[in-house]
Amino acid sequence: MYQSVSCVDFKEVLPEVCNAVQEADFISIDGEFTGISDGPSVSALTNGLDTPEERYTKLRKHSMNFLLFQFGLCTFRYEPNQSSYVTKAFNFYIFPKPFSRTSPDIKFICQSSSIDFLASQGFDFNKVFRSGIPYLTQEEESQLREQYEERRSQINGAGTVLYTPTAGMGFCNVPEDQRDFIRMVELLDTKLMASTQPYKEIISNTSLAELHKQLREKPFRSPTTECPEGLQSYDTSTEQLHEAGYDAFITGLCFISMANYLGSFLTPPKSHISARSKLLEPFYNKLFLMRVIDIPYLNMSGPDLQPKRDHVLYVTFPKEWKTSDLYQLFSAFGNIQVSWIDDTSAFVCLSQTEQVQIAMNTSRYAESYCIQTYAEYMQSRQKSTHTSRRWTDDGWADTSYSAAAMTTCRRRRSLGSPQPIRVKVKGAADTRRGRRRRRRRRREQQREQVCRNAHTCHVTRSLHKLMS
Amino acid sequence: MYQSVSCVDFKEVLPEVCNAVQEADFISIDGEFTGISDGPSVSALTNGLDTPEERYTKLRKHSMNFLLFQFGLCTFRYEPNQSSYVTKAFNFYIFPKPFSRTSPDIKFICQSSSIDFLASQGFDFNKVFRSGIPYLTQEEESQLREQYEERRSQINGAGTVLYTPTAGMGFCNVPEDQRDFIRMVELLDTKLMASTQPYKEIISNTSLAELHKQLREKPFRSPTTECPEGLQSYDTSTEQLHEAGYDAFITGLCFISMANYLGSFLTPPKSHISARSKLLEPFYNKLFLMRVIDIPYLNMSGPDLQPKRDHVLYVTFPKEWKTSDLYQLFSAFGNIQVSWIDDTSAFVCLSQTEQVQIAMNTSRYAESYCIQTYAEYMQSRQKSTHTSRRWTDDGWADTSYSAAAMTTCRRRRSLGSPQPIRVKVKGAADTRRGRRRRRRRRREQQREQVCRNAHTCHVTRSLHKLMS
Repeated sequence: MYQSVSCVDFKEVLPEVCNAVQEADFISIDGEFTGISDGPSVSALTNGLDTPEERYTKLRKHSMNFLLFQFGLCTFRYEPNQSSYVTKAFNFYIFPKPFSRTSPDIKFICQSSSIDFLASQGFDFNKVFRSGIPYLTQEEESQLREQYEERRSQINGAGTVLYTPTAGMGFCNVPEDQRDFIRMVELLDTKLMASTQPYKEIISNTSLAELHKQLREKPFRSPTTECPEGLQSYDTSTEQLHEAGYDAFITGLCFISMANYLGSFLTPPKSHISARSKLLEPFYNKLFLMRVIDIPYLNMSGPDLQPKRDHVLYVTFPKEWKTSDLYQLFSAFGNIQVSWIDDTSAFVCLSQTEQVQIAMNTSRYAESYCIQTYAEYMQSRQKSTHTSRRWTDDGWADTSYSAAAMTTCRRRRSLGSPQPIRVKVKGAADTRRGRRRRRRRRREQQREQVCRNAHTCHVTRSLHKLMS
Repeated sequence: MYQSVSCVDFKEVLPEVCNAVQEADFISIDGEFTGISDGPSVSALTNGLDTPEERYTKLRKHSMNFLLFQFGLCTFRYEPNQSSYVTKAFNFYIFPKPFSRTSPDIKFICQSSSIDFLASQGFDFNKVFRSGIPYLTQEEESQLREQYEERRSQINGAGTVLYTPTAGMGFCNVPEDQRDFIRMVELLDTKLMASTQPYKEIISNTSLAELHKQLREKPFRSPTTECPEGLQSYDTSTEQLHEAGYDAFITGLCFISMANYLGSFLTPPKSHISARSKLLEPFYNKLFLMRVIDIPYLNMSGPDLQPKRDHVLYVTFPKEWKTSDLYQLFSAFGNIQVSWIDDTSAFVCLSQTEQVQIAMNTSRYAESYCIQTYAEYMQSRQKSTHTSRRWTDDGWADTSYSAAAMTTCRRRRSLGSPQPIRVKVKGAADTRRGRRRRRRRRREQQREQVCRNAHTCHVTRSLHKLMS
């Protein structure tokens, strides 16, 4: 079953939604937002050596003012007799229409590339802005109720009773405290699953559309699904990609295919693996981390992985430097890997840990650049109390990381000094090339960012704890 | 003639638009934006005693991140033989769709009350986001051209020629420098006109829709208009209010009615007054200032009015104070007028200038509040270098005005002190009532703000200088 829900039918549909969730073995969700980053592009913002904490903080900082204006929810219940799943998909249009003149007047940001992307997918902006489901936070609701009661008492108890969607949500028994909710729910990220063993080797592209395509071919099997009689169902042959309800639906299908695949390793093999199976526990509550070199996921229910980074150097240098300058600087060390932090600093991964000490020694008298071990860098970061990053218009950072680094780096002062230096540095005369280089880098980053539009992290939630 | 223009037909229609502008006696414009203020509500932001400069700065500060996504333009040419106007109205849908991955990715703010208002008027969001006319600033254009040339040279001159709308605008002969443009154009604000003599007494409501209604009745006359054969025209009987093209159209009609009305004062009376008539010069280049007590307009081509404000006091007080506390404080002076600046300061207009000195004397030993003359206040403001206002979440200001005031106000320190004071001050126990009061005030302000949605300042431009 597939249903598009707006303010017109929300009240009527809500009990149906709650029942479907109650009955479900698992549910899958997806969301469409008005943008991704209100600061620099996500790829300019993030770094291959971010810690999960850093990554979370960075993304959160630049995404809080966007609007979730379409929410997809799909419920899946397994029917052992038909050995098929009964699915119910809901596609909610959401808009914070001011409830009254006294209720909050939300301001939200739109990012033209994201809006353009959704427009190209046929997103119905008229439907969301004309009949989106209004909502309030619990705080806003109680404020509004207070005002309302106040006015009512002024006019001697007359007036109708206030209705707000959040009030309606009451009979879903969603815990007051969101953390309790997370604790009760087990979350499973199909994108992480697909990029982990045993799927990693078989699945080349984990974007939802591609993943869904690959999971319909051997060694995987598409699950058989049905939906209650006479109700509209999504048809995977006519894709409605990036409609939240449809994306939630195929996210669930992907999960089932991958889960069942695990059954083929059992003796005897099993064709159906339930969402509650122990086999799936390794994947629970881990969120995919995009483009982090050595940490695959953010762990929601335990300490994060602490990869060894003793082969990593933190290098600061004049803003004229290009990647090639870094390769030249470390040419003696064979293969290196460069992760830019901003215009004047980067992480450099050496191929062998032994090289670190050599690099540190040779750099001791360098005038133009400065090297710290990853450990030193992390230490100096902890020292620096606030690491608030100020971004320049074109998305580059005056990063307080380097500021922190300075506290432990004697020679930082002489960066970009005119004195002769170990590696070739482009001077003022070359700023044009400098601009080009930055532009070229930015171009790559923008390309990646646009791709990210397709890379919503798909999530399924197994609710058995909630229901037991 | 009425034409809706999107990226589909922009290139084709543009020459037509330019010709219509060239032929016109005057043109009228209107715009639809994604919001009004990204900070506090306009009425919380503004004050009845703002100077035109202050008002401009405040409104500018909180409106720069909204998007103009519909632009209305209507041209009017008088036909002496038919003694009627030929009108051509254009309704442009505009959206900064990224031209390529390397071109700017605009972030813009939407205000839910404004979006909801436009939705309720049937605004077509799908059309604007799917096929709005893309654009670049001249700077963005030249950057993009540079990048493009760069890439072309890399691939040896191959590739198609870059086209951007702004490039297309070239053959409109719009001066490079915007100030030159303003200098060449004469701007006339029909809202200001309607709220000035001789219309002021006759016209009760100057919102565009109401204005248009009243100008169709005696003593005014609706102008006769025609549009080129077989072209769609707006029909004022089926209103399309808040479609920019339609609003521009009726703005022009309002202007003609008001202009011709001036002719009735001539001997012999004239039924047609041209946009170039000397009679209209008093209205040129003056922009309506909403809710400023003693300054009706912002003068674009000359010094602003400097009304006497020697009966005005600047009063600072504890944040618990309400308007009634101020009335009580000044009860001895008869009628007063209070304009709130923020939670701890307000302007108070006394009915007689002589009262000012008395107020100053009696206030000399006040512990809880502080009074300055308007002159002192302005002086202290000039002293304070940066008057950047920090707004709290609920839209109230820690205003650096009061900070400035402190420099010349010895007793400011003791504001809100527990010592006995001249007027009753609500204590901490009463913060609930305080909140209510603030909420009530905010409610009024929000009401006014929502009204402002209908109050786009209507503008007509007489282009004869541009064309002579």
